Amino acid sequence: MLINCAAYQQGVKLADLAPEEIGGYLDRPDTFVWVALRDADSAELEVYRQQFNLHPLAVEDALKGHQRPKVEEYGDDLFVVMHLIDWTGGELLRGEVAVFVGRNYVLSVRNGSKVHFLGVRERCEREPELLRQGPSFVLYALMDTVVDRYFPIVDILESELEEIEQSIFTSGAARDNIQRLYALKRRLMLLRRAVSPMLEMLSKLHGGRIPPVCAKSNDYFRDVADHLARIYGAIESVRETIGTAIQANLSMVAIEDSDVTKRLAAWAGIFAAATAFAGIWGMNFELMPELKWRWGYPLALGLIVSVCLGLWYRFKRAGWL
Amino acid sequence: MLINCAAYQQGVKLADLAPEEIGGYLDRPDTFVWVALRDADSAELEVYRQQFNLHPLAVEDALKGHQRPKVEEYGDDLFVVMHLIDWTGGELLRGEVAVFVGRNYVLSVRNGSKVHFLGVRERCEREPELLRQGPSFVLYALMDTVVDRYFPIVDILESELEEIEQSIFTSGAARDNIQRLYALKRRLMLLRRAVSPMLEMLSKLHGGRIPPVCAKSNDYFRDVADHLARIYGAIESVRETIGTAIQANLSMVAIEDSDVTKRLAAWAGIFAAATAFAGIWGMNFELMPELKWRWGYPLALGLIVSVCLGLWYRFKRAGWL
Amino acid sequence: MLINCAAYQQGVKLADLAPEEIGGYLDRPDTFVWVALRDADSAELEVYRQQFNLHPLAVEDALKGHQRPKVEEYGDDLFVVMHLIDWTGGELLRGEVAVFVGRNYVLSVRNGSKVHFLGVRERCEREPELLRQGPSFVLYALMDTVVDRYFPIVDILESELEEIEQSIFTSGAARDNIQRLYALKRRLMLLRRAVSPMLEMLSKLHGGRIPPVCAKSNDYFRDVADHLARIYGAIESVRETIGTAIQANLSMVAIEDSDVTKRLAAWAGIFAAATAFAGIWGMNFELMPELKWRWGYPLALGLIVSVCLGLWYRFKRAGWL
Amino acid sequence: MLINCAAYQQGVKLADLAPEEIGGYLDRPDTFVWVALRDADSAELEVYRQQFNLHPLAVEDALKGHQRPKVEEYGDDLFVVMHLIDWTGGELLRGEVAVFVGRNYVLSVRNGSKVHFLGVRERCEREPELLRQGPSFVLYALMDTVVDRYFPIVDILESELEEIEQSIFTSGAARDNIQRLYALKRRLMLLRRAVSPMLEMLSKLHGGRIPPVCAKSNDYFRDVADHLARIYGAIESVRETIGTAIQANLSMVAIEDSDVTKRLAAWAGIFAAATAFAGIWGMNFELMPELKWRWGYPLALGLIVSVCLGLWYRFKRAGWL
Amino acid sequence: MLINCAAYQQGVKLADLAPEEIGGYLDRPDTFVWVALRDADSAELEVYRQQFNLHPLAVEDALKGHQRPKVEEYGDDLFVVMHLIDWTGGELLRGEVAVFVGRNYVLSVRNGSKVHFLGVRERCEREPELLRQGPSFVLYALMDTVVDRYFPIVDILESELEEIEQSIFTSGAARDNIQRLYALKRRLMLLRRAVSPMLEMLSKLHGGRIPPVCAKSNDYFRDVADHLARIYGAIESVRETIGTAIQANLSMVAIEDSDVTKRLAAWAGIFAAATAFAGIWGMNFELMPELKWRWGYPLALGLIVSVCLGLWYRFKRAGWL
Repeated sequence: MLINCAAYQQGVKLADLAPEEIGGYLDRPDTFVWVALRDADSAELEVYRQQFNLHPLAVEDALKGHQRPKVEEYGDDLFVVMHLIDWTGGELLRGEVAVFVGRNYVLSVRNGSKVHFLGVRERCEREPELLRQGPSFVLYALMDTVVDRYFPIVDILESELEEIEQSIFTSGAARDNIQRLYALKRRLMLLRRAVSPMLEMLSKLHGGRIPPVCAKSNDYFRDVADHLARIYGAIESVRETIGTAIQANLSMVAIEDSDVTKRLAAWAGIFAAATAFAGIWGMNFELMPELKWRWGYPLALGLIVSVCLGLWYRFKRAGWL
Repeated sequence: MLINCAAYQQGVKLADLAPEEIGGYLDRPDTFVWVALRDADSAELEVYRQQFNLHPLAVEDALKGHQRPKVEEYGDDLFVVMHLIDWTGGELLRGEVAVFVGRNYVLSVRNGSKVHFLGVRERCEREPELLRQGPSFVLYALMDTVVDRYFPIVDILESELEEIEQSIFTSGAARDNIQRLYALKRRLMLLRRAVSPMLEMLSKLHGGRIPPVCAKSNDYFRDVADHLARIYGAIESVRETIGTAIQANLSMVAIEDSDVTKRLAAWAGIFAAATAFAGIWGMNFELMPELKWRWGYPLALGLIVSVCLGLWYRFKRAGWL
Repeated sequence: MLINCAAYQQGVKLADLAPEEIGGYLDRPDTFVWVALRDADSAELEVYRQQFNLHPLAVEDALKGHQRPKVEEYGDDLFVVMHLIDWTGGELLRGEVAVFVGRNYVLSVRNGSKVHFLGVRERCEREPELLRQGPSFVLYALMDTVVDRYFPIVDILESELEEIEQSIFTSGAARDNIQRLYALKRRLMLLRRAVSPMLEMLSKLHGGRIPPVCAKSNDYFRDVADHLARIYGAIESVRETIGTAIQANLSMVAIEDSDVTKRLAAWAGIFAAATAFAGIWGMNFELMPELKWRWGYPLALGLIVSVCLGLWYRFKRAGWL
Repeated sequence: MLINCAAYQQGVKLADLAPEEIGGYLDRPDTFVWVALRDADSAELEVYRQQFNLHPLAVEDALKGHQRPKVEEYGDDLFVVMHLIDWTGGELLRGEVAVFVGRNYVLSVRNGSKVHFLGVRERCEREPELLRQGPSFVLYALMDTVVDRYFPIVDILESELEEIEQSIFTSGAARDNIQRLYALKRRLMLLRRAVSPMLEMLSKLHGGRIPPVCAKSNDYFRDVADHLARIYGAIESVRETIGTAIQANLSMVAIEDSDVTKRLAAWAGIFAAATAFAGIWGMNFELMPELKWRWGYPLALGLIVSVCLGLWYRFKRAGWL
Repeated sequence: MLINCAAYQQGVKLADLAPEEIGGYLDRPDTFVWVALRDADSAELEVYRQQFNLHPLAVEDALKGHQRPKVEEYGDDLFVVMHLIDWTGGELLRGEVAVFVGRNYVLSVRNGSKVHFLGVRERCEREPELLRQGPSFVLYALMDTVVDRYFPIVDILESELEEIEQSIFTSGAARDNIQRLYALKRRLMLLRRAVSPMLEMLSKLHGGRIPPVCAKSNDYFRDVADHLARIYGAIESVRETIGTAIQANLSMVAIEDSDVTKRLAAWAGIFAAATAFAGIWGMNFELMPELKWRWGYPLALGLIVSVCLGLWYRFKRAGWL
């Protein structure tokens, strides 16, 4: 579905175009055409494939989706894929955007995500002195927006981790914690698979050999790369902390279990002592003189109670109770 | 066993050949011979070794099998080995295909796998404008097919993992889970040993110095490399998740064990208390006035029951029951 | 907030300047202007942006803060971000300092940290023969100070680890230890996220291609890099030791738990034996001749006691008690 | 001890030589001398050191032994050390072979291993067209033999792992398994320390800059490197699987322990209930009307039995028994 | 404190010098001055700083100590720091030696270690043909000595590990083992922090670009690097084995604990059965016909004993006892 299609000269918008008018603008000096599509099908893309002379492998990737983030050079043209991560209803959903960039055109195709890029176009049109850099600036602006949208996701994951951390050392929450840590790890991995290849791909757009189409926006791509590196650092940090948290959680379970065993042992000992004494005076021997004493019963009770108290005190002091 | 042998000129099939006719086609311009063998023995390969002047080390590797995926240059010729992974009867089976590529020939030798490559030849013949690239396009088409067949394997492993994940946090499934996770890990390692060296080998076919025979199909090899990188990413992700799942499983066992210990401790305490009291009134002292009271027995029973209920309530509130 | 602004020629201070006087000094030979700001806002930075012709992306980063340590080249100018780590009230707090370095100016902007850099200026002014190197020496001096302040933090973390280690093998401290190890790990990660990217960034300032503005201070940046590498080594060492300590702690919990289970088992066995014997002589069969023996009761008591002692001795010898 | 010493011209054996005759053959065109020693001492090596002009550091290494696998260039000459791994009596034993390679000589010194290399010489003499490559082909043949002897070792370790895997999920074998896994890991590490540096060293003999003496045998060294990479892959795979197996084993111990605790808890509960009821009717209160009932005893027995059965059934259904 | 100061020409000692005589020898051809200091203070070093024109940063590092192993080039001069590890009274102690190397001088400063280097000087003077290489050979000789002293340390750590391994699978030693493994790991880390950066630093002295002052001793530095790589390999191997040993130890604790639980469960079951039966016949029902049987008591005893034996036999067979 076509969202937007316009031509820009020297960073200033010339006109909104219909797809078939594109050809007339491609050869003008300092001019490029910027097209935005959503969930495009094969037929729709075919139009632009011809207009912009796109490489069939790139078009196929854009149609099939489920690509990993990448940048590929086809001659002087670039083909870029990025992941869009939405946080909807407590879950992370992954969409994709594929961008074709040439000397005189930019074509973005968004798939499976409800997030739109209209703000990007507005922002670009407000800054014609920057948009004058051409299609590479549009690519930068799209990337910047994609990456900026990763930040709140990282924040959500980080604050979720902090929430879990608060209950790691409170007893009784272990089962819940391990479940939440596991789910958090999965979400983190999803984000990581969007960020990690993108970081690698950005290193091709600044520093070292740069595709000619991106040369002017060098500094800008480095800026995006830097933001992404920050996100990646946070992801790795959360990831390592999750690992430590799982270990700490397991330790806490073991410690609690040990405490329970101690209390079990202590009370079992106390009651077993009482029962053993009672059992002895419950024997039916005929000649058990103490059974006939006047104070036999109170003495026996007193002995049992004091043995139990003695044990109780010892266990208490040893920290078992 | 010979499956197929044909000559192609400018991407168009000239004729099916008998092995001894090959020589006549090798010097024609823009022509190459494409041979497909299955489980070839030494004698069979010897024919082609002479026709195509194959390197003895490469021929030896193709005969012996059990190679790791690799690409080797012998002068201007390439020798490529890939793993074929079949999913048969719930198990992964590994076959191999060795491909010899020269300026004017392609020879593929498939070993120990029931999957065939006839579809590849058909697809190539339908696109003569691509097949015109020569033997390197055939190599690409074979690689692409091999890699595309990894995708369903990854999907199977991923959905198996998801199935296991559903029962990780349900009690009583721990033994089964650990067994399945272990088996899954083994299968994953098998696939990984096919994919990881292949990824490394593909980096030699696109970007940087490229063997001359592959120069024209540069973009296509990059495309395969990209698919493979996607598979590798998925494998690494499954692998890390298995690690976390094993830890989570162990944690769940510990938590369940702790719960059982708590319930054991609680019930043991309740019964031990009852037994201790009963034991005391079962002693045979002569002077135990309460034994003679009218309400002695009901009072004793009541006391025992209320102590037990009291304990039960306390344990309940503490979450031990 | 402006802290300080002065011009230096040949390493000697010429004059304290008001911001608007800067322009007059920028073109003098061997002269540079050194400005220090704190928590600067957009308006304040705008003045210097114009004077020094700073790149908008760098200015934006300095204003927004929450950057990761980095060095970026904009043309011949450098933009450097470092983390400042304060140890306040038992917690690590992170501030930032952004430094803009050009041929004839240095501008530092400090955010969110109470630590100041006045000492740096004094030290530089005392060594005019070094300050003569120009802005890059100021950058070095700032970096050196930032890095030197990491050392006491590392010392604090190391001595905290040593404290924990002392109680790892004493029983009863497991819960406390795991909690402290977890907190220590978190602090360490914070420091690591300041050090690790800075180490990477410093490698761009010495050895290999060096930004021209830093060329003269090459050896000095290598010295800072070396200090930082030392800190990084210590961090990695603490990190690995924490991992081992967590494992050791878990082992100790398991060992203690095992000891408790053994003692529980031993005492339960001893009392259960006594109770069983007592129970047998408490049965009400009419024909139990031993009940009528003269020495029946003492013999029974003796038997029970000797069985218990025998068990006790055996358990003692087996190390269960 | 001298094993063999012969001169070869154009790949064909000229004569067996005494050590003092060597000098006469070193300057002939296309000729080289091949010497094989075993457990040579300082005096013996001194002869060859002079004849071949060996570097003192290399000679020292060959005498001292306990080197790690390596290849070192001394001028145009090569010094190579490899580990020999023997499987004797259920244990891995490590020997070494040091090889000096020059333009016109090969000298191999074998230490502490019963495996000999006679087969290598025979094989080389049967293929004069290959031996014509000169000393580097001899080096290749030795390497190939050493590496081929690693394969059965890997097979032994792999099948040992598979044997252990079979009993990981059967109960009662945990202690044995952990012991065997530990021993297997140690053996694997021994092999790994032979293979890993050799892999690194082989990368210096093919691809990139190659020592001139090896130039002609380039493809052959790559072939060895490929075999070694296969072995290394297998080692890493076994290593990772051992790690997972140790975890799985620990999980199984925990699961079994949990099962035992459950059964303990269940039976303890059943018997404790019976004992508590019996204890109550064993109390000596005078007014316990049920004691006088005609069916009191059978009813009591029935109650006890049914409570026990009820508990038993519940535990059974919960999977505790 | 000055230990030694002498001038060498063509590898032969000219004279012992007083510090102030140094200047007269620095300009002679093929001559260098070799000075050895111990725990030098600022004033002492100042003399040599002027004579040899040392870089202030290097002097500062040598004075402050607590450096990590490193090699730094200041112009044509080298500054090298190495760690000295002593094994004293069962503990590892770390000292340092800093070496300044120039075209015509070597200055070594040893700090905080009782080990001296006199043997190095003697050895060098005995081999003038090697010492003729100049200061770089002295540097080599010092490095070689430092590295050779690491070998016995590694041996001590390895044999300590082997000792621990012997008791890993014997029961009752777990607590001791974990403590010793932990201490061993710490010691290993200390050694590793000496070796790992030194390995990295040595790579700068052989292969690739080499500082001119070291050019002649290239092969010798490679030899040291090789020894160090061997040590590093051993360290990594011990490190990985410690990790596995900790896991194995934890497994053994769990297995032993499981065994104890089983025995506890078994004996508890046996005694509980006896007690339950005894309790039943201890009830006070009036109508319990078996109490009046002639053989009631023996039969009851027999039943109890046979139930207990039956249970005992079953538990024995199940491996619980």
